[in-house]
Amino acid sequence: MGANDGTDLQDQPAASSGTATDRFADDPAFAVHEGGKLVVRPTRGITSIDDLALTYTPGVARVSSAIAAEPELARRFTWAPRVVAVVSDGTAVLGLGDIGPAAALPVMEGKACLFSEFAGLSAVPVVLSTTDPDEIVATVEAIAPSFGGINLEDISAPRCFEIEDRLRERLSIPVMHDDQHGTAIVVLAALRNAARVVDRPLSDLRVVVAGAGAAGVACTRILLEAGVGDIAVADSRGVLHTGRADLTPVKRSLAEQTNRAGHAGSMTDALAGADVYLGLSGGSVPEAAIATMAPGCIVFSLANPIPEVDPEMAARYAAVVATGRSDLPNQINNVLAFPGVFRGAIDAGATMITEEMKLAAATAIAGVVGDDVRPDYVVPSPLDRRVAAAVAEAVAACARAGGIATRA
Amino acid sequence: MGANDGTDLQDQPAASSGTATDRFADDPAFAVHEGGKLVVRPTRGITSIDDLALTYTPGVARVSSAIAAEPELARRFTWAPRVVAVVSDGTAVLGLGDIGPAAALPVMEGKACLFSEFAGLSAVPVVLSTTDPDEIVATVEAIAPSFGGINLEDISAPRCFEIEDRLRERLSIPVMHDDQHGTAIVVLAALRNAARVVDRPLSDLRVVVAGAGAAGVACTRILLEAGVGDIAVADSRGVLHTGRADLTPVKRSLAEQTNRAGHAGSMTDALAGADVYLGLSGGSVPEAAIATMAPGCIVFSLANPIPEVDPEMAARYAAVVATGRSDLPNQINNVLAFPGVFRGAIDAGATMITEEMKLAAATAIAGVVGDDVRPDYVVPSPLDRRVAAAVAEAVAACARAGGIATRA
Repeated sequence: MGANDGTDLQDQPAASSGTATDRFADDPAFAVHEGGKLVVRPTRGITSIDDLALTYTPGVARVSSAIAAEPELARRFTWAPRVVAVVSDGTAVLGLGDIGPAAALPVMEGKACLFSEFAGLSAVPVVLSTTDPDEIVATVEAIAPSFGGINLEDISAPRCFEIEDRLRERLSIPVMHDDQHGTAIVVLAALRNAARVVDRPLSDLRVVVAGAGAAGVACTRILLEAGVGDIAVADSRGVLHTGRADLTPVKRSLAEQTNRAGHAGSMTDALAGADVYLGLSGGSVPEAAIATMAPGCIVFSLANPIPEVDPEMAARYAAVVATGRSDLPNQINNVLAFPGVFRGAIDAGATMITEEMKLAAATAIAGVVGDDVRPDYVVPSPLDRRVAAAVAEAVAACARAGGIATRA
Repeated sequence: MGANDGTDLQDQPAASSGTATDRFADDPAFAVHEGGKLVVRPTRGITSIDDLALTYTPGVARVSSAIAAEPELARRFTWAPRVVAVVSDGTAVLGLGDIGPAAALPVMEGKACLFSEFAGLSAVPVVLSTTDPDEIVATVEAIAPSFGGINLEDISAPRCFEIEDRLRERLSIPVMHDDQHGTAIVVLAALRNAARVVDRPLSDLRVVVAGAGAAGVACTRILLEAGVGDIAVADSRGVLHTGRADLTPVKRSLAEQTNRAGHAGSMTDALAGADVYLGLSGGSVPEAAIATMAPGCIVFSLANPIPEVDPEMAARYAAVVATGRSDLPNQINNVLAFPGVFRGAIDAGATMITEEMKLAAATAIAGVVGDDVRPDYVVPSPLDRRVAAAVAEAVAACARAGGIATRA
């Protein structure tokens, strides 16, 4: 780069330290991540003094003055209402655990890519140097005026419950912990269609949820709201029941709302005669346990990359099998939910994401499958562009019907 | 938007609430701001299951695992090192004052546009709901792993000094309060060339700085470092001197390093015989005061949109006149400094921005003018694309020479 040779830095990305032929060359995932996966760009170029004077000073002062006088103009003349912060402290990243903010960042960048691709929203990864719930809440509250929504991501349980609850209470923009509710929405969508395949109402189904972390808790709650008959939730010590003395407040609350059958043993004990297995825990479920499930049962085994229940084995017993894997049918992928949920909430100017909006999102996802429903097609492909549009429409309509929309 | 009509939300921006023909239609600044001025986009499209599996799960897990094992790989495989956070609490926005975070946002978006246009860097506006220095420091520290640099902006004095100092100490990425140092760098560049026009060494010059806020303090410091002969700094109560009992710690420190001539009166008193007037205060300086300046004097009057010294009047006394206005020659515009300063610091992997790097930036800006220097051309045009490249090169070289670079 010469000082006076007319070099234009805009076309010359700030260098990363890699070279094309190195130890990462064999894995295309690294090539995709070279230099990062996101870029921020102006919506209009700046090529004249006039452009500069309108985009920046002095023209920008007139826009800032107008917003200072009428704060609601920020919705129209800033980008914030259409930007989602993807916030993580890196404590529960995919199946990798507590790997910290820097290592969590590629996941958050990926999420931001999906917000852009599927919902036309901008999203900014915000990874945090703190894991203290008070500090996380204070930090997100402090930066909230910069954003139109907060997607919490990969924050470990049970901290994630408190952090989401407190932020929902303090902020008047949509806040959603996707590991909880994104998963729950897609699971409910898939279960609605799986129940159609086996021709059973949700209220008839007895479900076993393996895992009482972020996803297990949220899935249990949404299934209860959707009217599922009975649910036994198991953590690593067995089925949650009110007689257990070792429960966190969140698990105690779940124990009070579930397990009407009174199971007090292991998860595999509870599987006997059950209609649905929902695996959110990792580990491995033996064939003998699956064999005890009710005829025409449903197996959703979502651990990645290795499902808790071997999918081939599961298919010998279950009428419907779903996993988290992209190479198998019925992939339960959060990307079916979060882009449309945030887009719908933002389109409606919703001040929060309610339970009704999540239920509406699940119904909309299931509806994209519609009458094409089959045992190997209970959820749409994660690439199906119709999904986010349908979810956004349903979520926005629900927000408006619920009186929490600020925009018609 | 129909549920199943194949609508693609990506091409359909989340709506703003405006219409083309309304009360803002007459001012093109509002049209430029409609829907915001920035967008976050993926660097690669996601059109296949393979794309999805590399950008997001499961492929992203391999990248996250690699970074967890070798943290320095984050520099290569995430976007963070090339993203600048433009952070403001909205307390000192342009000449508008304390207008709050939402109204400050268009300015921060504008700044982010300029980072992209001139330095090829991504930048994200972060406006804060708090004005408490402790909370601002804690918030920026918490989000710092998401970014490669922190541009503090439009934070009122004297809070801005403490906030910048504390963040510089705690973070190992470049932190710069642009209202201070961006202005100071460009002022020094302009003064270097103006001194050439009048054929005087900087050490001969007696300067009056009108204004002891963020810009006044930083300009005074950099001019002292550059070897300017003597400086009298004035706030609204007159020239700073060690006998004044009303000085903040920052002003007291300035009083101790300046005013060797022992001025104790008003700013206009100090102007008598002075070589340079540097206006950073607003208000109006009468012709009678300018008339007392030394022959061949230099007037930099930077208040916007109305300079403290009327430029036509100033031209009757001064050999060189500069302002902040885009419609006059010699526009002192921070965009000449901050894009290249951050780009150079980031290219070198610098852990901070040092005084030497700022001085190098000023010299580089002055150098772009080079031998074309004239009374009406002491700084390059803000659109001159050579400037950021020259500044980046000089700043990176300085970081490497100073031992604070982490990249060759």
